[in-house]
Amino acid sequence: MEINTSKTKSGEHLVDVAPLAAALEKFATEREWAQFHSPKNLVMALTGEVGELAEIFQWMTEEQSHAAGGSPGTSQAVKEELADILLYLVRLASVLGVDLNVAAQHKLQVNAEKYPVDKARGSNKKYTEL
Amino acid sequence: MEINTSKTKSGEHLVDVAPLAAALEKFATEREWAQFHSPKNLVMALTGEVGELAEIFQWMTEEQSHAAGGSPGTSQAVKEELADILLYLVRLASVLGVDLNVAAQHKLQVNAEKYPVDKARGSNKKYTEL
Amino acid sequence: MEINTSKTKSGEHLVDVAPLAAALEKFATEREWAQFHSPKNLVMALTGEVGELAEIFQWMTEEQSHAAGGSPGTSQAVKEELADILLYLVRLASVLGVDLNVAAQHKLQVNAEKYPVDKARGSNKKYTEL
Amino acid sequence: MEINTSKTKSGEHLVDVAPLAAALEKFATEREWAQFHSPKNLVMALTGEVGELAEIFQWMTEEQSHAAGGSPGTSQAVKEELADILLYLVRLASVLGVDLNVAAQHKLQVNAEKYPVDKARGSNKKYTEL
Repeated sequence: MEINTSKTKSGEHLVDVAPLAAALEKFATEREWAQFHSPKNLVMALTGEVGELAEIFQWMTEEQSHAAGGSPGTSQAVKEELADILLYLVRLASVLGVDLNVAAQHKLQVNAEKYPVDKARGSNKKYTEL
Repeated sequence: MEINTSKTKSGEHLVDVAPLAAALEKFATEREWAQFHSPKNLVMALTGEVGELAEIFQWMTEEQSHAAGGSPGTSQAVKEELADILLYLVRLASVLGVDLNVAAQHKLQVNAEKYPVDKARGSNKKYTEL
Repeated sequence: MEINTSKTKSGEHLVDVAPLAAALEKFATEREWAQFHSPKNLVMALTGEVGELAEIFQWMTEEQSHAAGGSPGTSQAVKEELADILLYLVRLASVLGVDLNVAAQHKLQVNAEKYPVDKARGSNKKYTEL
Repeated sequence: MEINTSKTKSGEHLVDVAPLAAALEKFATEREWAQFHSPKNLVMALTGEVGELAEIFQWMTEEQSHAAGGSPGTSQAVKEELADILLYLVRLASVLGVDLNVAAQHKLQVNAEKYPVDKARGSNKKYTEL
C-alpha cells in the first residue's frame, strides 16, 4: 500500500494538481509547445501573469481589495489571472519534475518552525527579526 | 449526483487545493495573521516569491534551466520557491473567495478557443497575432 | 545646434543616464559579464529586484509605506532595491539600444493624451475606462 | 562650491532624473493623483510594468532577445515598457524621498566590493558563492 504518494485518495494530500498537469501536458503536446516550455521561459510567463494580477490591485486600498473577487468590475479578471498563475505554476512544476504536494508539505513544516505561534502571534515581522 | 463541485472525488476536478487552503487558514488564524492577509498584501507577497524564483533562473540558459529541478545546487531552492508561490496563490484565492478549480477549468476552455490546434501548432505567437 | 539628442546639456532632457550606462558597461566588461547580459536575462534580473522591493512593502499599510524611505528599519533596503532596479533598467536599455530619455519623452506625451486633465482628475481608472 | 550634490552639472553624477521627477510631479498634481501614489501602490504599479516587459521576452531565446530593441514587431512595445518602468521608478523614488543618483553611486560601490574583478571574472555566481 502506497501512502506516501500524492496520487492517493483525498485527505492524504494538501493539493492534488495531477489532472491539471495532465491536461496542460496534453494541451502543449497537441500544439507542439514543449519547445517553448523551458523552465526559464515558464518562469517569465509566470512573472507576466503575476504582473497582470498586480495591475488589478495596484490602485485599490486594502479595504477595497477584499471585495475584488466578487465585484462585477474585477471578479472575472481576478479569476482569470489566478487561473493563469495556477496553470503556469503547475506546468512549470511538471517540467521541472517537482511534486507540488510534497514541496507544499515540506514548506508548511518549515514555516511552522520559522514562525512558532507564541512568537509570531500578531506580528508581520520576518522570522529573522522575531 | 454533483459533478460540478470541486469537492467531489478525484478525477472530477483539475485541482484540489482544499486541504492546503484549510491548513493555511489554520496557520494564519493561530498567528492572528488575518489582519495582514488582505488580497492586496497577498498579491505583493506572491510577487515577491515569483521574484525569488526568477533570481534562481536569471543567469541560466534555457538548456540549463531544464536541470534546475534536479540539480544539487538549485533543487531545494526551486522547490521552496514553487511551494511559496503555491501557498500564497491558494491563500489569496481563499481570501478572495475564488474557487481555483472552477477558474482553472474555465481558463483551459478559454485557452482552447484562443489557441485552436491547427492555428497554434508550433507557434509562440499570442492568440491576437495568430 | 543639436537639441534632439539626450546627450546635450541639462534642461534639454528628462533624464540623463549616460554616466551610469558607461559605468555599468565598464563594470560588465571588466568581469566578462557581457555573455550573461542578454536582454532576456536582464529582464529576469530586473524582475527579481522588483520582487525584493515588493517584499519590503508587502505587509505595510499604505500609510506606513510613506515613511519607508526614511525609517531606520527600511531606509537602507529601500535605497538598495531602488538602485538595483535602476542599474538593471539602465543596463537593459543599453544592451537593447534604447534611449531611455527619448522613450520617457514619448511616453509622457502618450500619457498626457491618454489621461487629459479634465477627464482623469481624481480618478484611478485606466484610460480605457475614463 | 557644491560638488557632492546630484543637481550639479553633467559628469558629476551617474544619473540625473530631476527633470523627469518634476514632470511627473506636475502630471500627478494636475490630475489630483497624489492620493493614489503611495509608495506601496507605486511598487505594485512598477511590478505590473515589469510583468508586461517580461511578457514580451518570455518565449524568445536569448539570441532573439538581443534584437528586440530594434525589431519592428517588438521595438515599440519594448520602448514603452522600459519607459513605464522608468517613470514609476522615478516617481516612487520621489515619493519616498530617495535620491536615485546617490543610491546608484552607493550601490555601484557595494557591487564593486562584492564582485572583485579577479574573483568574478567570467562567473555568473552570486557573491556569496564566489
